[in-house]
Amino acid sequence: MILDFLLETGKLKNIKRAGWIINGIDGESVADHCFRVSILSILLGDLLKDKYKIDMEKVLRMSILHDIAESRIGDIPYESLKYLGEKNKSEAEKEACKDLFKNIENGDKYYSLWEEFEDRKSIEAKIVRAADKLEMMIQCYEYETGGYDLDHFWNNEFNFKDFTFDVVNEIFEELKKRRKNKR
Amino acid sequence: MILDFLLETGKLKNIKRAGWIINGIDGESVADHCFRVSILSILLGDLLKDKYKIDMEKVLRMSILHDIAESRIGDIPYESLKYLGEKNKSEAEKEACKDLFKNIENGDKYYSLWEEFEDRKSIEAKIVRAADKLEMMIQCYEYETGGYDLDHFWNNEFNFKDFTFDVVNEIFEELKKRRKNKR
Amino acid sequence: MILDFLLETGKLKNIKRAGWIINGIDGESVADHCFRVSILSILLGDLLKDKYKIDMEKVLRMSILHDIAESRIGDIPYESLKYLGEKNKSEAEKEACKDLFKNIENGDKYYSLWEEFEDRKSIEAKIVRAADKLEMMIQCYEYETGGYDLDHFWNNEFNFKDFTFDVVNEIFEELKKRRKNKR
Amino acid sequence: MILDFLLETGKLKNIKRAGWIINGIDGESVADHCFRVSILSILLGDLLKDKYKIDMEKVLRMSILHDIAESRIGDIPYESLKYLGEKNKSEAEKEACKDLFKNIENGDKYYSLWEEFEDRKSIEAKIVRAADKLEMMIQCYEYETGGYDLDHFWNNEFNFKDFTFDVVNEIFEELKKRRKNKR
Amino acid sequence: MILDFLLETGKLKNIKRAGWIINGIDGESVADHCFRVSILSILLGDLLKDKYKIDMEKVLRMSILHDIAESRIGDIPYESLKYLGEKNKSEAEKEACKDLFKNIENGDKYYSLWEEFEDRKSIEAKIVRAADKLEMMIQCYEYETGGYDLDHFWNNEFNFKDFTFDVVNEIFEELKKRRKNKR
Amino acid sequence: MILDFLLETGKLKNIKRAGWIINGIDGESVADHCFRVSILSILLGDLLKDKYKIDMEKVLRMSILHDIAESRIGDIPYESLKYLGEKNKSEAEKEACKDLFKNIENGDKYYSLWEEFEDRKSIEAKIVRAADKLEMMIQCYEYETGGYDLDHFWNNEFNFKDFTFDVVNEIFEELKKRRKNKR
Repeated sequence: MILDFLLETGKLKNIKRAGWIINGIDGESVADHCFRVSILSILLGDLLKDKYKIDMEKVLRMSILHDIAESRIGDIPYESLKYLGEKNKSEAEKEACKDLFKNIENGDKYYSLWEEFEDRKSIEAKIVRAADKLEMMIQCYEYETGGYDLDHFWNNEFNFKDFTFDVVNEIFEELKKRRKNKR
Repeated sequence: MILDFLLETGKLKNIKRAGWIINGIDGESVADHCFRVSILSILLGDLLKDKYKIDMEKVLRMSILHDIAESRIGDIPYESLKYLGEKNKSEAEKEACKDLFKNIENGDKYYSLWEEFEDRKSIEAKIVRAADKLEMMIQCYEYETGGYDLDHFWNNEFNFKDFTFDVVNEIFEELKKRRKNKR
Repeated sequence: MILDFLLETGKLKNIKRAGWIINGIDGESVADHCFRVSILSILLGDLLKDKYKIDMEKVLRMSILHDIAESRIGDIPYESLKYLGEKNKSEAEKEACKDLFKNIENGDKYYSLWEEFEDRKSIEAKIVRAADKLEMMIQCYEYETGGYDLDHFWNNEFNFKDFTFDVVNEIFEELKKRRKNKR
Repeated sequence: MILDFLLETGKLKNIKRAGWIINGIDGESVADHCFRVSILSILLGDLLKDKYKIDMEKVLRMSILHDIAESRIGDIPYESLKYLGEKNKSEAEKEACKDLFKNIENGDKYYSLWEEFEDRKSIEAKIVRAADKLEMMIQCYEYETGGYDLDHFWNNEFNFKDFTFDVVNEIFEELKKRRKNKR
Repeated sequence: MILDFLLETGKLKNIKRAGWIINGIDGESVADHCFRVSILSILLGDLLKDKYKIDMEKVLRMSILHDIAESRIGDIPYESLKYLGEKNKSEAEKEACKDLFKNIENGDKYYSLWEEFEDRKSIEAKIVRAADKLEMMIQCYEYETGGYDLDHFWNNEFNFKDFTFDVVNEIFEELKKRRKNKR
Repeated sequence: MILDFLLETGKLKNIKRAGWIINGIDGESVADHCFRVSILSILLGDLLKDKYKIDMEKVLRMSILHDIAESRIGDIPYESLKYLGEKNKSEAEKEACKDLFKNIENGDKYYSLWEEFEDRKSIEAKIVRAADKLEMMIQCYEYETGGYDLDHFWNNEFNFKDFTFDVVNEIFEELKKRRKNKR
């Protein structure tokens, strides 16, 4: 039922992003994060669509739904992947996502989209992935402005290895420049 | 600059929804709300697109950007409109939105989209508006489950006067039924 | 009814100061702020009453009631005035305040007092206004001590243009000196 | 120094009221409480001044400063008085208050006023005391509306033994009536 | 290094219990929970030690350390086990725990103790497990008193299947009786 | 009754540590603190038991129960002791603790243990006391990393006068070294 699906995905308003919690920051919700990922996805898609063939509707659907499995699995922190295994986590999210979409009509179509994001192969998936990580680094910069010490985020290549588009790197360079100026 | 636009719209993560604050609930952020409005907009659009001619990409863009002026104006509570005037508020949001989009390339195109939502005339605007209000009523139900007394939300016609689609009313009826069963 | 008036003004305990929210600080309530404005108003009034003819009872009433319209309008952030218009906001607050005081006997007398504060002409209004802004700068200093970056508050003349009394400037100079020593 | 006094009394914004904490409610600050006590003191004073000879300036000063010792002592919960002893607590607050006011000119005059409140003998002290307790019961009603179970507050005579004025009892009766209607 | 171990386990102060988060309650930390599990373990151990041969030192060590793997893995909600697999989660916690204890001398001894708890076979492990779950049900009762609707916790056999001791069931019966009286 | 004892001691989850509150940090609960004190007590006890004759079961019981009187008295901030008197506070805690333990069988045995901690004479009491204070300094370091200015904690001898064991001083020196490197 649609209402059940909305009640479940609404839990992402209450689930705080684990990466910040682990660093002592009781900060944004998963939903907060997804919101700005969607904004960034619009901007990136529009900037890249002259150069690449991009299905913008798909980009937007993906950006909105990309973290939806977390309403059943929770936000598993990066640090725990070493123990849980990337593959186990990925399998669990896939199953959770499948079940979640069973609540709604044509759920399999939504699921396919979500899986396409997970595969990170299509141009649309790559754009949303870059938005996902760039949004995180911007939030990181903002928490540092609030006094927190998050040096290790800027030294972890995993956080920006998906910045494969020039425009993403330009924004990221600007972000790093501002960060340096504050220090 | 894109980064400035992202930093500004990121403020919606910190701005709590005024309608709940006024009722003693230090609850969801504007971004939290927008996130589920986007989810609901996907679902409603897909359910309605057989019956109506709908530009789904537009629906999604609108749903993501519809509250963006609040990053400059704040979330002005419903109760204050009587004094500030709907028109004044609306004009202020328009100007703020225009300025905000000046930060980014092709800002005027984004602004037009935002204004189309405000006008509530196109089918896409009507879908997002229904999602906007239905999302609020679902959240209202959830806060009531948490113990709050929000009776007046269910007695205020303004909150559901935009429920012009059958599918929206079906979900709303189901919501009211569940609410009744909890009492 | 008095009880309704108390329930409404009690909302100022829940409404967080918008100026901090906009800067990522989910901090003090409007009531918190008003409390220290009242304390500061007592001190300033007593220090100035040898030099000026001051009605201390009026100073105190004003200091307690000066933000009361926000229980109906909300705390509209400084940044939004550019769009909402100072005059529109001011008119809205006046109407809201009038309505609010209709709940209580002799409400018009309270309203006149509130309006006198808004006009910033009487010596009592000037004292409370200076207290209002100095209290904010002290809170700003305290949030900076907690790690936040609020440089722009110290560069915005609007924040201290009402520091027209020597004693206010002396406290403000001491505050700036301490701030400098922490850097 | 005045600034030190303001920084210390500003701590009352951070100190949550112990009576609610003990009941699982991470709610209002001491400053929040004092703010509405001041509002209520204005209203009560004005309603009573035809019948009694009341120094309103004194009422207001008292209402603003009455909890100021808590910035050095903290908010000691009612339940602990059995062990700490009312007299010990009272002596401690007196000493703390004396020290606190040493920061400011004519501190002894402020201290006398504070002590007069503690003695609960003058008409002004009685008014502020009634406001202090009635404000608490109103807040109690509001937390109950938010779902909390605070029955024991309404059964504890200590909470309303200082309601010696008719007008205070009238407001309290209205409050109890509304509470009953919600159940 | 001991300090690193303390910094890591200190993260349990920041990690909120996932079971409540999923239900919209931004409540207690894992450390909060562990604290009362330890208190309850003392009481249960002492009540049972006449009947069973119990190593109380072991009970206490276990109760303090039983959730320690969560500082690396996070608090994985019950609902996600269906997808992650109990065994995967268990294996992950074991590896995380081993690594965590490498920071300190004789880490393998601590690890063995932790593993003994996980195996739930020894009398000491059974006592701490019962305390773990009974503590949760008491907290559940307390959140319900605060207005939340947590009916499903009382209908989920998993939550009290480890109540194998009479004394635990007696406390649980008393808890259910009080819950009933409040309804 | 055991359940009452558990409900009361559970209040320590809600009572925030007053020392941080007074410094503007709405941080850890008393229960959070006790949890890490227990962890540290295990480690210190094990490291010292070759050199001293130590009853580890007693160390652990003490570490878990040492702050339990605060569920009736609240967390009285260090700054207030000057006014309340160390002896008055100590007497109050003793009486509160006695009453609290009356709820449970053999309460006098638990009380004796608690009192032994308060006397700080036995080797077990000294270990838990050192853990109590070292835990606080580690938390202090962590809040500083989050941007807070807590210099005065490191200049207050009272905070580390109980560091009488070499191993405690070694950890403390390491902590100070890391703090220096961050500046």
